[in-house]
Amino acid sequence: MPGLFLSFEGIDGSGKSTQARLLAEALRARGLTVTLTREPGGSPGAEEIRRLVLEGHTDRWSAETEILLFTAARRDHLEKTIRPALARGEVVITDRFADSTRIFQGITRGDLSATVDRLHDLMIGVEPDLTLLIDIDPALGLSRANARAGTELRFEDMGLAFQTKAREGFLALATQSRRFRVIEGDADPAAVAARVWQTITPDLLPA
Amino acid sequence: MPGLFLSFEGIDGSGKSTQARLLAEALRARGLTVTLTREPGGSPGAEEIRRLVLEGHTDRWSAETEILLFTAARRDHLEKTIRPALARGEVVITDRFADSTRIFQGITRGDLSATVDRLHDLMIGVEPDLTLLIDIDPALGLSRANARAGTELRFEDMGLAFQTKAREGFLALATQSRRFRVIEGDADPAAVAARVWQTITPDLLPA
Repeated sequence: MPGLFLSFEGIDGSGKSTQARLLAEALRARGLTVTLTREPGGSPGAEEIRRLVLEGHTDRWSAETEILLFTAARRDHLEKTIRPALARGEVVITDRFADSTRIFQGITRGDLSATVDRLHDLMIGVEPDLTLLIDIDPALGLSRANARAGTELRFEDMGLAFQTKAREGFLALATQSRRFRVIEGDADPAAVAARVWQTITPDLLPA
Repeated sequence: MPGLFLSFEGIDGSGKSTQARLLAEALRARGLTVTLTREPGGSPGAEEIRRLVLEGHTDRWSAETEILLFTAARRDHLEKTIRPALARGEVVITDRFADSTRIFQGITRGDLSATVDRLHDLMIGVEPDLTLLIDIDPALGLSRANARAGTELRFEDMGLAFQTKAREGFLALATQSRRFRVIEGDADPAAVAARVWQTITPDLLPA
């Protein structure tokens, strides 16, 4: 694929959505075409699956069913949004991708890491060129997420122990692949954006 | 599992839903407790996924995404409906199970059989004790399905060539496992039900 595929990952309230948007703006200011997207969702079909998963009680679906629904949404997102944009030579920035499933379904809801990985290899098979992990203290992330008070409290609802386990999972995952850059997120958005910008070296960018 | 798990399979208009209901009635008349269910669907969550898949244009989802959605629905159906009923020692009769995915997504929408099988092994891992394949001439099946004219024309829409390929797929599948019984479906429902009944030998039934 001629484009560049970037993902932002992190626990709820880490500021990754803000950082994804700021990076998109910075790259557009450089004259690049950027597709800014998110998961779960990112295509009309995937957004419908997102609503199905995030509505209702936290125990509405088992972890295994949730993994399948998120993978279905990811497959649609990849086919309808990500691959076409990369084929056009664009930069694709996604707010969450497969690493979120590895953590939120694979680790925090039981020991399903191997299942998540096998399902990913079978049905998705793609990783971002670079993954920006915005790392933050779980208590701060939780207070930010609660202050936001959206209608989708599906995962934010799960509390500090959950967030702590998720953070540890993300940091462990980041040691396993060279595509990760861990960004310290406990600062104002402009300062964090400057740290993100340092990781986007010129050799990465599409011509 | 102490119960008995039966599935009915066949192309649209084969009469399998009628036969599933007639077999449930016959077993109840013998004093057995029967859970009669269907796919896609069979549990509240799976019914919602069913609506998502069956609504809209036939090309709304790729075959791969459809396989993932049907497997998610099946996982929920298995957890919430099938396994609990079998654990109570009941007879479970489902109108369609994994064989329908093997045929309708695995064969008729491209060569995805290996993917369907690997996904099934990873996330479902269960087969019925006995599968009743109601075999019928595809032209007759299609005319019956069209006469029924429901709102869910998602697959019936696909025409005679599709139905013919699906029938051939089911018959080929039936040669690969001893759990299949192929029932000639070109007769009135009572006559077909008598053929079905002959396959339910007393040794199969729960105590």
